[in-house]
Amino acid sequence: MNPSLSAASPAEARRLIRTGAHTGQTAGMAPGYLQGNIAILPADLALDFARYCQRNPKPCPLVGVSETGDPSLPTLGADIDMRTDLSGYNVYRDGELADTVSDIRDLWRDDFVTFVLGCSFSFEDALVSEGVPLRHLETGTTVSMYRTNIATVPAGPFHGDMVVSMRPLKPADAIKAVEITARFPETHGTPVHLGDPAMIGVDDIARPDWGDPAEFRDGEIPVFWACGVTPQVAVRQARPPICITHRPGSMLITDIPSTEARQTPG
Amino acid sequence: MNPSLSAASPAEARRLIRTGAHTGQTAGMAPGYLQGNIAILPADLALDFARYCQRNPKPCPLVGVSETGDPSLPTLGADIDMRTDLSGYNVYRDGELADTVSDIRDLWRDDFVTFVLGCSFSFEDALVSEGVPLRHLETGTTVSMYRTNIATVPAGPFHGDMVVSMRPLKPADAIKAVEITARFPETHGTPVHLGDPAMIGVDDIARPDWGDPAEFRDGEIPVFWACGVTPQVAVRQARPPICITHRPGSMLITDIPSTEARQTPG
Repeated sequence: MNPSLSAASPAEARRLIRTGAHTGQTAGMAPGYLQGNIAILPADLALDFARYCQRNPKPCPLVGVSETGDPSLPTLGADIDMRTDLSGYNVYRDGELADTVSDIRDLWRDDFVTFVLGCSFSFEDALVSEGVPLRHLETGTTVSMYRTNIATVPAGPFHGDMVVSMRPLKPADAIKAVEITARFPETHGTPVHLGDPAMIGVDDIARPDWGDPAEFRDGEIPVFWACGVTPQVAVRQARPPICITHRPGSMLITDIPSTEARQTPG
Repeated sequence: MNPSLSAASPAEARRLIRTGAHTGQTAGMAPGYLQGNIAILPADLALDFARYCQRNPKPCPLVGVSETGDPSLPTLGADIDMRTDLSGYNVYRDGELADTVSDIRDLWRDDFVTFVLGCSFSFEDALVSEGVPLRHLETGTTVSMYRTNIATVPAGPFHGDMVVSMRPLKPADAIKAVEITARFPETHGTPVHLGDPAMIGVDDIARPDWGDPAEFRDGEIPVFWACGVTPQVAVRQARPPICITHRPGSMLITDIPSTEARQTPG
């Protein structure tokens, strides 16, 4: 990444994205600030989706909800405009990916509600800075993600099994990782499982359902965290007439320091 | 309290309340289990109230939301029936207290949504059991509560200043209390202020707006936590045609162990 991008403030990073000067992923941009997964839904599904997030806080840590029809998100950043401030949007119609676009000015509707969910970038920063090595960052690959047999708690039409991300860690680092991620409830919090993958319905650790396989080194065990793909699966199950999400890797950059996510709203 | 009540399981405690065998407060019943503040609102206000709670997690720690029109709350207890399982209900019409009743079977509507918010009983149990003395429990009085000048983040018609509860503590106990309550984000979490009351708009610590005044002993400082009266004030500001809450002290007893509130939903 261009060094000037990694030094940009959240507002500057959003401006670069909004003006089309940056069109790629957001990993590493505005370090130290919370980035969010996005789901934009019509208002008649918003209460059910809010219930789904409340009932499943580990995969769906809700950090912001917009007013109906309002593309701003003043609780997460003074100048946020959801129509332009992601570097890529996926548009789903009836649960199927219909289009990928760079802004949604033409698609915006006055019944849209934006949901922002914390993503794992913040806790990964904390793990690395406290000395827990993360294989996928070392190898420049995408973290391994798996469907599990852990059912989420349904809400209206939203339901489905939990998706997890997996990081290979030495047992001592796994313990340290639990301690560190306990401080980040708004970015998936503590792991949901460690050790035997079969116990959560993962049959072949070498074949992730999303992302790349990870190499295991001597004595390492798999450690599993709830993953932000879970609500995407739930939305797909619900087959809403329209739902707009971030394009994978193109998160919303907020003004909230990662360490303060819990205290954000008041 | 009758010793058999303090030994009752959550399901047994709810049965005693449902059948009218227990009509008093719930403090001390089913110890170790999360008790909840209740707000029941018509569905057309439910999304705004969910947003209000999401934006103000310290005063409004949402632990459960019902399906529309459904008096059960399966995520918090297998047999909960919101029409009968509180020992007292306050009925507000247009923001004013209109009635206090012992069940709401006749008032229930198929557009009602129940919101359950964590209450301070759980963190008080933890403080006492870890050696932090709480004056109001020693003296058998009600904790002191104050209006502050800390504005909550509004959502639709819901808004207002934060209400806080105050406990006098020695500085070393205040530090321990921060450490302990950090583990209880679902029951108001860490304090919002300590020390000078004037900094949060509390002019006379000896005259609480709710509850009883507390005696200060040598070297003690006031420690302030966000309080569950905050959403009640916000609801009153919103003047909904109808809103039903718990009668103060008559909480919903859930099946959720207090220490696991954060992990509850999935």
